[in-house]
Amino acid sequence: MTITHTSNSLAHTLRQRREKLANLINFPAVLWSGSPNSRNFAANIFPHRPSSHFLYFAGLPLKNAAIRLEAGKLQLFIDNPAPSSALWHGEMPIRDEIAEQIGADEAYPLAELESHLTGVATIAVQDAATWTQQSQLLDRWVLPQRPPENIDLELAASIAELRLTHDEAALNEMRQAAAVTVEAHKAGMAATSSAKTEAQVRAAMESVIIAHNMTTSYNSIVTVRGEVLHNEHYTNSLQPNDLLLADVGAETPTGWAADVTRTWAVNGKFSSTQRDIYDIVLAAHDACIDKIFPGVEYEDIHLCACQVIAEGLVNLGILRGSPAELVDVDAHALFFPHGIGHLLGLDVHDMEDLGDLAGYEAGRERSGRFGLGYLRLNRPLRQGMVVTIEPGFYQVPAIVGNSQNRENFSKFVNWERLSQFADVRGIRIEDDVLVTENGREVLTAALPTQADAVEKLTSTAG
Amino acid sequence: MTITHTSNSLAHTLRQRREKLANLINFPAVLWSGSPNSRNFAANIFPHRPSSHFLYFAGLPLKNAAIRLEAGKLQLFIDNPAPSSALWHGEMPIRDEIAEQIGADEAYPLAELESHLTGVATIAVQDAATWTQQSQLLDRWVLPQRPPENIDLELAASIAELRLTHDEAALNEMRQAAAVTVEAHKAGMAATSSAKTEAQVRAAMESVIIAHNMTTSYNSIVTVRGEVLHNEHYTNSLQPNDLLLADVGAETPTGWAADVTRTWAVNGKFSSTQRDIYDIVLAAHDACIDKIFPGVEYEDIHLCACQVIAEGLVNLGILRGSPAELVDVDAHALFFPHGIGHLLGLDVHDMEDLGDLAGYEAGRERSGRFGLGYLRLNRPLRQGMVVTIEPGFYQVPAIVGNSQNRENFSKFVNWERLSQFADVRGIRIEDDVLVTENGREVLTAALPTQADAVEKLTSTAG
Repeated sequence: MTITHTSNSLAHTLRQRREKLANLINFPAVLWSGSPNSRNFAANIFPHRPSSHFLYFAGLPLKNAAIRLEAGKLQLFIDNPAPSSALWHGEMPIRDEIAEQIGADEAYPLAELESHLTGVATIAVQDAATWTQQSQLLDRWVLPQRPPENIDLELAASIAELRLTHDEAALNEMRQAAAVTVEAHKAGMAATSSAKTEAQVRAAMESVIIAHNMTTSYNSIVTVRGEVLHNEHYTNSLQPNDLLLADVGAETPTGWAADVTRTWAVNGKFSSTQRDIYDIVLAAHDACIDKIFPGVEYEDIHLCACQVIAEGLVNLGILRGSPAELVDVDAHALFFPHGIGHLLGLDVHDMEDLGDLAGYEAGRERSGRFGLGYLRLNRPLRQGMVVTIEPGFYQVPAIVGNSQNRENFSKFVNWERLSQFADVRGIRIEDDVLVTENGREVLTAALPTQADAVEKLTSTAG
Repeated sequence: MTITHTSNSLAHTLRQRREKLANLINFPAVLWSGSPNSRNFAANIFPHRPSSHFLYFAGLPLKNAAIRLEAGKLQLFIDNPAPSSALWHGEMPIRDEIAEQIGADEAYPLAELESHLTGVATIAVQDAATWTQQSQLLDRWVLPQRPPENIDLELAASIAELRLTHDEAALNEMRQAAAVTVEAHKAGMAATSSAKTEAQVRAAMESVIIAHNMTTSYNSIVTVRGEVLHNEHYTNSLQPNDLLLADVGAETPTGWAADVTRTWAVNGKFSSTQRDIYDIVLAAHDACIDKIFPGVEYEDIHLCACQVIAEGLVNLGILRGSPAELVDVDAHALFFPHGIGHLLGLDVHDMEDLGDLAGYEAGRERSGRFGLGYLRLNRPLRQGMVVTIEPGFYQVPAIVGNSQNRENFSKFVNWERLSQFADVRGIRIEDDVLVTENGREVLTAALPTQADAVEKLTSTAG
């Protein structure tokens, strides 16, 4: 799996992107790459991950660089490698080579940037060293934690508009990330029968990603405590009756992400209670994907998941009442407290650095409802968007163990019945879905979701 | 491989360390943990690596925390997890639990720190967000790139004095890092016969580290271009006649590092030219380790390596003249341009954030000589130090291909003879060595160095 586009097609792609930007704004923009963070001394740096907005228009994972975009033209600002660097780092590409590769119109040393900043808009980079520099050079505060204003806001909204839907080059990258992620999950499933710890399964999964010269697009979740939604510890040992929840995604060298979750049984076979719940989550997953079509409201897809989960839990005797009423009172959210998914692209939560600017249609705001407030995307779907679909069922102690909740929902929840499902701590099934002209394409479809198929991939027999 | 000390022994160890510090300084010190860096949006953070000085006295990989040390007492400043965090991150240890585990004398919310800063010394943390905070709170510049002054310098020198030699708890950690690193290298060797790319070998090695819930202590070098000394790319395919150089080390969850290099033949069998050079590097490696003893000057060990390499290259007809003279004119450094090693501890180049304060005995400075200037450690060895021994041979184009060098060293180098060794781009053999009362203990001795043994581990026969 290697990057297949040539420099010419990269340059062509980038030119198209900046020409589209030029149609939306009539002022210049400067985007910084950001700089790597040091680990414990200056020379021991963390792997660098450039700003996504920079990557979108500059195409290559450069560091300590900036680009200036105006009227469809690109000026690159980056220093040549120091002469001594050939000794330690080998021959590195010089400015003019990079400029040619990305189709820059002009290229300058970084020091020249200062004289090209009049009237430019920008977006704050995450690392403090760079946003400090941005603030100093532009003589105004450019802070990642502060919403953009004025021309910065105009720029952010315009870039969000472009990045909401993906061009062929982006999709090519995302397909590669998806393919490697599928292989990583299969490796994790195959490794489970001989693994003794979460860490060993994580190692099998991330090993596939490293072997393809990719990185994880976020810190992997590989846990038998699936009810801890953002669990980033891998210290538990695997018990035969545990479910293992793995939320692991690859990112290509130029920054495009995948985001996939599967849940399987450590011993290769779901218990009847695990299977019952698994099939409800899967039904929600399938129903949501079937609804994906240009123009459909993503919130409706979320509510579809809520409805299917509520129905399933009523059928199991865990919830009582009509599914529609249960969703109205957020009873489903006791077990499915998060949103059905989010935008996917250069970021795993695409453009979350801009708050809800990309995720929420203009004029819409987060709901105050527990069952809706965590929804990260609330727009009609468009052809070319990629979204995740990730329904789940969790027994979060802070929610289902909360005495106030148990009392408030005593009418709707059969708590005694629920106690029979103690071996289901957390289940999530997540795929990455491209909105197409005629419906949808599941980019991660090569990874099975059916309980039988998952059992087959996880059993010792392979 | 799990952390074996109980909280009691951790608390005991930390108390001993701060009591030793109290014997060296008579003013309070505050050390910050640092804070994690965001990847591309605030919630997607890079794994956090706390400041090493903090880890030395606080023992646990905390984030957004500070400790105040005075007269052997420890005050911990950290906020309790937000109530909402139980929903997403599960139950996290609260301040009082952490305080008990590390044997803190007092514990406060982070906001209390501000009123405990009168007259305190500190050391700059690497991340810009934290050193900005340090500077603001202390109302003076605390910058990682600026050498410490006044009481900060006194503190840094005192901590360096403590961290130069390792206590039993530290050695216990380093032995675990070493053991996992040895397994990682064996896995890399075993994976090579079926691997097609550098990335695949790297994956096999880092997979072992991940499976043990450790991280790499620096960005791995796994390359067929071993002459690029700090090569952090893994994009080359493996050719049968290539040498593969792997410089990979594990770090325990509390931050203690290993740092090991091996070089092996992709096809499992060194060519005669590769073997000839390999045996010279190994002879230097063995001779240096044999010389390790308390009181011995580390520079003499470096010069021993230079001498052995020069002798070997004379024997092969690559160098001409007496080895002693060749070392005097830095002819060896054409092929061995770096130092023989460095301190190892919480940092892979231990305490390099303090410049040469730890590495160089007071009053000593870096040599201007090409063959000595890159030496990172220049002190008499002491019992309890851990150092790396890492001789190498490289054909760096920027050095051996440099026409000025070729002319200047024409008397000493048989360039035509050298051209027969074109299949030796780079070889390094590196181990981690503890200085003991009676000599030394190689912490990574379980990983073979002999060419025959390496061939056995890398051959398809296993």
